[in-house]
This record gives sequence, C-alpha cells and structure tokens, in this order.
Amino acid sequence: MKNFNFHARTEILFGKGQIEALPKALAPYGKKVLLVYGGGSIKRNGVYDSVIKLLGENNFEVTELSGVEPNPRIETVRKGAKLCRDNQIEVVLAVGGGSTIDCSKVIAGACFYDGDAWDIVLDKEKITKVLPIVTVLTLAATGSEMNKNAVISKMDTNDKIGTSSQEFVPMASICDPTYMYTLPAIQTAAGTADIMSHIFENYFKSEEDTYVQDRFAEGILRACIHYCPTAIEKPDDYSARANLMWASTLALNGLTGAGKGQTWSCHPIEHELSAYYDITHGTGLAILTPRWMRYILSDKTVSKFADYGVNVFALNPDEDPYKIANKAIDLTEEFFKKIGIPMHLSELGIGTEKFDEISQKLDRKFDDAYIPMTPQDVKKILEMCL
Amino acid sequence: MKNFNFHARTEILFGKGQIEALPKALAPYGKKVLLVYGGGSIKRNGVYDSVIKLLGENNFEVTELSGVEPNPRIETVRKGAKLCRDNQIEVVLAVGGGSTIDCSKVIAGACFYDGDAWDIVLDKEKITKVLPIVTVLTLAATGSEMNKNAVISKMDTNDKIGTSSQEFVPMASICDPTYMYTLPAIQTAAGTADIMSHIFENYFKSEEDTYVQDRFAEGILRACIHYCPTAIEKPDDYSARANLMWASTLALNGLTGAGKGQTWSCHPIEHELSAYYDITHGTGLAILTPRWMRYILSDKTVSKFADYGVNVFALNPDEDPYKIANKAIDLTEEFFKKIGIPMHLSELGIGTEKFDEISQKLDRKFDDAYIPMTPQDVKKILEMCL
Repeated sequence: MKNFNFHARTEILFGKGQIEALPKALAPYGKKVLLVYGGGSIKRNGVYDSVIKLLGENNFEVTELSGVEPNPRIETVRKGAKLCRDNQIEVVLAVGGGSTIDCSKVIAGACFYDGDAWDIVLDKEKITKVLPIVTVLTLAATGSEMNKNAVISKMDTNDKIGTSSQEFVPMASICDPTYMYTLPAIQTAAGTADIMSHIFENYFKSEEDTYVQDRFAEGILRACIHYCPTAIEKPDDYSARANLMWASTLALNGLTGAGKGQTWSCHPIEHELSAYYDITHGTGLAILTPRWMRYILSDKTVSKFADYGVNVFALNPDEDPYKIANKAIDLTEEFFKKIGIPMHLSELGIGTEKFDEISQKLDRKFDDAYIPMTPQDVKKILEMCL
Repeated sequence: MKNFNFHARTEILFGKGQIEALPKALAPYGKKVLLVYGGGSIKRNGVYDSVIKLLGENNFEVTELSGVEPNPRIETVRKGAKLCRDNQIEVVLAVGGGSTIDCSKVIAGACFYDGDAWDIVLDKEKITKVLPIVTVLTLAATGSEMNKNAVISKMDTNDKIGTSSQEFVPMASICDPTYMYTLPAIQTAAGTADIMSHIFENYFKSEEDTYVQDRFAEGILRACIHYCPTAIEKPDDYSARANLMWASTLALNGLTGAGKGQTWSCHPIEHELSAYYDITHGTGLAILTPRWMRYILSDKTVSKFADYGVNVFALNPDEDPYKIANKAIDLTEEFFKKIGIPMHLSELGIGTEKFDEISQKLDRKFDDAYIPMTPQDVKKILEMCL
C-alpha cells in the first residue's frame, strides 16, 4: 500500500428533505450567493423553487448563472467568474449534477485568478484561492460533490481537461435521493456507468495489498448492479436512488483510490471522445470499459479480473481464472446493455475518422497506467467499440 | 435508509514516515502544544523521540501529560484541562491509541468548561468550545482518530461513559502502520476485536436497505479476519498492519453506521465490565460478541446472520439460513480464539458476583437496540460468557 492523504472534508447532508438545511450550510460563508445550474430540469422538478424560496426567506442575495452544459465549457466558467467579481460573491452554490458542480468549482477558483480561466484548468498550480462551494446534488454520477476534481471542455480546440484543488472540495453537499425520481432512464444508466468506471479505474491497479479499498470498491459495484435496474424500472424507489446516490459520492471521494498509484485508462480516452463528439460521459465509459477489459486481459491481469468475478458477480472461485475473468467481462457488458446504454460508437454516429487524431493526442498518456498503452493500443480499443 | 449527516473532516496522513508531516499538521493552530500519551511504549519504540525532535526543531512549546490509563480516568482529564489553562495551550497532540485520543478530546473540551470535567462526559450539551486536536496513532482499534467519540472512566463509581462532539473530530491524524510493529500480540488481537465489534454494532440493525454500508462493513470484517493472524505471526508485515490500521479508522468514522439507527448492544455491556473490572475493552467485546449473537439468533435475525456468513466467510448461500447463521457465529468465536483472546470471563478472574448489579445498571438501555434486551437478558448473556 502506498502512502496517501485522505481529506474528504465535505459535510454530507443525506436524505429526503435535507434541503431544509441549506441556509445553515451556506450561512458560515456569507450572504452573497452565486447560484449555478444547468438546463431546465431543476425548474421542472421543483428543486429550483425550493432553493430560491429558502434563500429568499433567509435573506441571501442571489446572482444566477444558468445553462451550464453537460460537458461544461470554459466560456461558462469565464462568465461565472465575472459574475462573482461583479457581485462580490461570497459562496458558490451548485445545484445539479457533476457538470454543474465541476463548472462551479472552476468558477470559484477563476474569480481570484487574474489571467484567463483556461490557465487554471491547464495548470492547477495556478489555483491560489477558491470561494467556498456548497452543492445540492441532483444526479448520482461523478462524485464531484465530495472531491477536489473538475473537468472543463474547450470545444474549439477539442479539449476536455481535468483540474483539481483541495480547495475545490465542497464545504457541504445536500444529497436528496428523491431529486433523482424525475431523471430520464438513460441518465440513470449513464450516471451508474460513471460511478462504476470510477471504481474500475481505481480497482484495476498493480498495488496488491489494498485489501480494504478493493472490498469497498466491490461493494460499490455490487450496489450499482443491484439497484440501477430497479431505479430504471421504478424511478421513485427510494432505496435504489439512495444507494446509487451514496455509491456515487463514495466512489470518488478518495476511499477506493487510497494507497494506489497509476494513471487512469478509460476516462482519458472518453474525455477525448466527448471533446470531439460531445457525447454523454457515462455512455462513452460504458462503451469503452468492457473492450478495454478484454484488450488488457492477460497473465498479468487475470487474477485481478478473477477477483472481480468472484467478489462482484459471485462466480465460482474454483473455476479456471481465465474462465472467471472472461465471464466477468461478459457480465459487465451485458449489464450495461441491460440498463439501456447504446454499446457501440456507431450508434452515436461516430466512425473511425478521428481515431488516429484521438489516439495520437493520448501519446505517452498511459505510460504509467495499470497496463501501459500506446496510441496503437488506444486505436485498437476504439475499433473494438465501433 | 434513514437520513444522515456524514462529516469526517479529519485529514488522514497515512503511511510509513508520515510523522514528518506533523509540524505542518499542527502549524495552523498555534505553537503551544499539550502532548498527551500513555505508558512507556512510545518511549520504547522511538515514536516519542521522533515527536519531540520534530516539535523542538520547529519551535513548538511543549507541555507534557503522560500516564493516560488504558481505560482513561476522569482524574487524568482534570489534570490535562488544568495544564491547558495554566499553559495557554493552543492545540492538543495525542500520541497513542484510542484511550490517549479519547482522553485528549475531553481535555480539549474540559479546558473551556467552568465546572467539573465529569459534567461534559455526562452531558455532551455542555461541550461548548474545544481546542483543536491532532493525533499520532499507534494502535488500530477504536477509530477515535477520525471520529467525535470519547469514553472516560470514573472508577470510584464504576462508571465508564461515552460522550461526543463534532468539535472532538481531530483536525489531522498521522497513521503510520510501522508504529504497530512492536505491539504485543494480545493488543493486536484485542484491537482487531474492537474494530470488528464496531462493525457488528452497525451491521446488525433493522434497516434493510443500507446496502452500500453493509458491503463496506463486510469488507472491513474480511480485512480483519484476513490480516490479524498475519500481524500476530509476523508483527512487521506492513501490508497486514496497514490494512488493520485503515480498517480501524474506517470502521467507526461514520461510514458503516450511516443511515441506520438503534442503540449498540455489546459495547454498553462491555463498558460496564471494564468499569467494574478494568479489563481490556477489545477482550471484553470478543468474549461478549459470539454469545450475544447466539442469544439473539431468531427468525427475525437469521437472514442478516446468513448474509454475514455468505459475504464474510463465503459460506454456501444455498444452505439452510440457520445452518449458515450458526456456522458464521461458530467461525466468529473460533477466530477470536485463534488470535489468542481468552474467551471466558472466568479466565479474567470474573465471576457472577456483580452480574445482577451490572445488568440492573443497564435497565432500559436496550429498549431501542437491534434486539431489545431486559436486565434478565443481559444477565443470561453474561452467564454464557463465564
């Protein structure tokens, strides 16, 4: 186990009706709030009205930034940072999913940065000071509500890049599972694929004695597999929504990656796909993951895949490890199909045209991955996804 | 799943050599440090020297309080609170296991309380302000390094009582697994029993849809069962020590109890045993737990015990649930025996003399437990432990 620092300082206020705690959660930071959200979903499901009512009743001064994109753009960050400066904002309130929270984080940092906001995406060392961030989560997926990460897109150069800062970690996050009752099935599915991918990225590593972390990882995967079909079939099943929501937060708050090293594999490839084609992050991950698994299955990785099969899918540990591993990968792919994710890039209108460009952009990116990959490897995996 | 707040704000600095981060961890709070520790073990294993050297080199002013008891006494708390006031202490540094950390927490609160320190043990509402606490952990057991709890004893009245405050949660904890290399085997065993008991107390609850929490709980139990025998056989096995240490922190930082209610069962009984006989907490828990399990096994609890057997001991899920449950309880008892814990109260010189008094002291305590128990029930369980 490698040394690690774990500091998930966010106060999680979890459960039905926790929105009532919002004024108290914001109060320590000031009265001037930038309210950041995406499209109209929070207006349709009543979350926007609840927030505005509570902020009004408690005399907060609200400036709004709406229209954050599913892959949030640097232009929106710039707009938010300007709003913060112009209105002496004291705390940023993100109401939405990972895109809205990620965008809010970079806004909260960019408002103290003199140069262009894109600089702090490219170089996290340039993040010096950050406004406190509070979130109201409406989609279980990225874990952004309890971590230091943010991913921002710059579409004119086909860049989708992650940045991070300990100061980005939200001060408090309100996680009410009922806010997911109105989610379209595909968003529930894609969000779950994102949760699972965070686990896979941390689970498939060379470190062999991160036993506690790996059992946690398997527990989260089992929760996703157990509850996602229920949440799709019965969107207002509280138990299903609650477990998926809590799973998403825990999947990427540092717990399952603690004590491990190495670069992630599917996420960087998916970021390129999104940067070129603006596809849903979770969908891209679901398409890539089983193909990447098949591509890297070897004598070096088979025992880890067998662990995965035994501990997540309850496969028979006495079988041949390759048999267990292949079965586990099959079951992974079948699960994504079952929850309704289109499992071929061609179904999203993506052909081979950009595969060379995308692969080259990732040159040397995977030198330190679980299984190092060259641009040729990436291209082959993309071809398996067609 | 019930609503919950999760706020484990502690920065965990985990791994070999993390002691070097101590000055930086203390720095935000001031220069005047109360260094709290127990017996001579940290002097024998070099941890004391490392701490003193680092504090000296970085110009901290150190006041020392040594001799914290294994079941820390209120007298020691009073002494510590006076030292804080007399020396204008700004931060309390606990170096040791749970007893030292618990004692430090109540000292940090008592120094701001005008009345007697025992008041804030009896009534946590009286805790108004608390000095910041930093810990250097030397024993994997109580999880006090990342939670709000503290247990203090008052031996003249045979009281051992828990108190808590969100302000007790340490600001930072240094967890170096190599500090456990010199632990006597029985302390490794008793510490592991304590970790497992924290899990059992949270796992055996009526809430049925805390799926993520229960898989985490099972993962921690598996880690204890997997690594404790190795740590005893080979005290300097880093992987074993690291997993046990991280398991102890995660077992009681709020994760496995989130979304659940109900009073604990074995801990309150053990607290009474310790208050009367000053026995090691973990030993008392290991003796009580399998007997409590047998006593409460019924049609109401059998499916939870079967889950435990299948997910922790990989028992065959197709067997009769009672068969799985009984086998799982047998394996629990065998495990504690295997790691060298004396499994009968009589081996500790404890007879039936105080059983009535202890049981009566717990009257109505378990009205809201997983399985409610009367003083008669408690007495029967104690008799099973003889």
